[in-house]
Amino acid sequence: METQNHSIHEQYMRRAIELAEKGRGYTAPNPVVGCVVVKDGRIISEGYHERYGEFHAERNALLRCKEDPEGADLYVTLEPCCHQGKTPPCTDIIIEKKIGRVFVGSMDPNPLVAGKGVQILKDAGIAVETGILEKQCLKMNEIFFHFITTKTPFVLSKFAMSMDGKIASESGDSKWVTGEEARAEVHLLRKYYSAIMVGIGTVLADDPMLNCRVEEGVDPVRIICDSSLRIPLDSKIVQTAKEIPTIVAAGSFGSDFFGSPMKLENMQEKEKQLSEQGVTVLHTSKGGKVDLKELMKLLGERGIDSILMEGGGELNAAAFGAGIVSKVQAYIAGKIIGGETAKTPVAGKGAMTMKDASVLRDLEVRMVGQDICMTGYPVPKEREI
Amino acid sequence: METQNHSIHEQYMRRAIELAEKGRGYTAPNPVVGCVVVKDGRIISEGYHERYGEFHAERNALLRCKEDPEGADLYVTLEPCCHQGKTPPCTDIIIEKKIGRVFVGSMDPNPLVAGKGVQILKDAGIAVETGILEKQCLKMNEIFFHFITTKTPFVLSKFAMSMDGKIASESGDSKWVTGEEARAEVHLLRKYYSAIMVGIGTVLADDPMLNCRVEEGVDPVRIICDSSLRIPLDSKIVQTAKEIPTIVAAGSFGSDFFGSPMKLENMQEKEKQLSEQGVTVLHTSKGGKVDLKELMKLLGERGIDSILMEGGGELNAAAFGAGIVSKVQAYIAGKIIGGETAKTPVAGKGAMTMKDASVLRDLEVRMVGQDICMTGYPVPKEREI
Repeated sequence: METQNHSIHEQYMRRAIELAEKGRGYTAPNPVVGCVVVKDGRIISEGYHERYGEFHAERNALLRCKEDPEGADLYVTLEPCCHQGKTPPCTDIIIEKKIGRVFVGSMDPNPLVAGKGVQILKDAGIAVETGILEKQCLKMNEIFFHFITTKTPFVLSKFAMSMDGKIASESGDSKWVTGEEARAEVHLLRKYYSAIMVGIGTVLADDPMLNCRVEEGVDPVRIICDSSLRIPLDSKIVQTAKEIPTIVAAGSFGSDFFGSPMKLENMQEKEKQLSEQGVTVLHTSKGGKVDLKELMKLLGERGIDSILMEGGGELNAAAFGAGIVSKVQAYIAGKIIGGETAKTPVAGKGAMTMKDASVLRDLEVRMVGQDICMTGYPVPKEREI
Repeated sequence: METQNHSIHEQYMRRAIELAEKGRGYTAPNPVVGCVVVKDGRIISEGYHERYGEFHAERNALLRCKEDPEGADLYVTLEPCCHQGKTPPCTDIIIEKKIGRVFVGSMDPNPLVAGKGVQILKDAGIAVETGILEKQCLKMNEIFFHFITTKTPFVLSKFAMSMDGKIASESGDSKWVTGEEARAEVHLLRKYYSAIMVGIGTVLADDPMLNCRVEEGVDPVRIICDSSLRIPLDSKIVQTAKEIPTIVAAGSFGSDFFGSPMKLENMQEKEKQLSEQGVTVLHTSKGGKVDLKELMKLLGERGIDSILMEGGGELNAAAFGAGIVSKVQAYIAGKIIGGETAKTPVAGKGAMTMKDASVLRDLEVRMVGQDICMTGYPVPKEREI
């Protein structure tokens, strides 16, 4: 296939990406996918995967063509599927409609597809070009790609800090570090992620709801890391656990509110009380505390593909130490708070030397209202904080 | 004058800004200035202020014209001067060469010019338009504008931290937080700033040289904030004070290395020893400690127009508290260090509530190699940390 027309292919793929984004928040655990059908230099149809369980992008586009798509070019952000799922294989309708060429953004790592979709099209005599705007197409579905290959949730560590690295003043005031636009963006994240996770310290300090406050937003599953079941029965989270799915991740021992060891029978009694309120208690243990790696496996088995981790500093430190963080998103405000003992986003013991620090790849930075947002992906490494 | 041609005027002014930048590091305490002469749509000459004491940009450009500049347009980043300094007034040669129109970037706040330059040109029948790319032209000379209007140095608080706000690991390792490009840029700052300032803690911990390590770089004046004259006589800074100008800012009392009060006669003796080594000791006092606001006045009187403040956390906190910081430049690495007690860039007591935090305006962010650089300007406010 000619390469001199690459910019026009990228232009159509960019449109397909735009379409795919319209499905964000409604397709999990499926990916977002967009599709454009082009004939004689004109777009004759568009489609996207609108909602989990409904038609895929290609089928939506091909069923809505304004004219016969025979011989047309089809642009799709993800390799067309070739298996019968909740809907029929997309390769079938592409072949049936006699599409001439197919341009693919990223390949589908789903073992049920994984190159087979492209091969079936080629076998049917359709020209296929892959890797058009691949990086963007991969990034768009980073949660899907992570979950389908690891069976554990994609964990986003999100925090807001001042330009001098503080998440609150020394007195504990944190309302607000960042501006309205950044805070609104975080609420969108709660819509796009399946679950939200905080440490018990955050619950005891703030008694938060951790719900989604945007229109048409579905509340994420709430996960509290609480090794010794200290969560109060009268906390907002426990009180609303019958309406919003809530998981408390416990270790192997309990303690009361003041941190003194809780007797086994008392812990069993607390767990029973929590269950009665609708809370699911999951046990893992590494030295009595929550084993985050093991917890991720349990959550993956429950279909949780993504977790928005909102701290605090101790949970963040444990998460980086356990290597479960997939992505970091730091909102940084143009403010100087100061304070030798003011809290920072990642506490714990920390790295001993600079060589032990977690390094992030693919750094990006952009302005969000009056703040900046910096993102990156931790390079995997075995280390304990 | 027509405004529809604004983009062409901005294009020539952009070239004048490029030329001006060539003088950076050689013109202090003068501003950097660039000039372009355009006739019949062609650039017939260019010039910039190359070195303090030498010709200004306009004169350099007008003396090098490839053809008669009569009736030409002259673009200059700063209002032409109209006073006899080390060189003759630029307005003279502009009028003498019969320039047709003059386009000015920013006005000159120097009381000796301040609008008079433009007025003289207008009185001579020359059309003048001001404010072309004004923001960039102002920013380019932010040090000059600050110093000439306040008579105190422009203070840049520069620090490097991880994405979780740490300047070192808990063990104190800080080599290196940021990558080579960011560190190279900091050495350029040492070339462009007249002085560099650190707290005594940094000297005791690192025994640094604080010199400029770039080619053709002039070492900045070294200023150590050292309320009680704790600086060791055998430190690298004291040992090299005869070659590189060095100022120790003292308070009104002394202490020995371990912080216990030093007797007045011992302090006088220490000051005498420092003087013999070539160190200048400046006294200010606010409750015994260095009075940073007063110190800035003394340094301004000595012609120091700019200070690169490189911490540590206690000096930074005091500087933000005293309101002497003009600009903040944070290099942020894509690394997570962690650690509850790992040091952060601004320590001290800090703001009590979010409302007390220093707010920065005109935030900008860019990538520098593998790190990001975030800059902003503290909004003046009266507050003590």
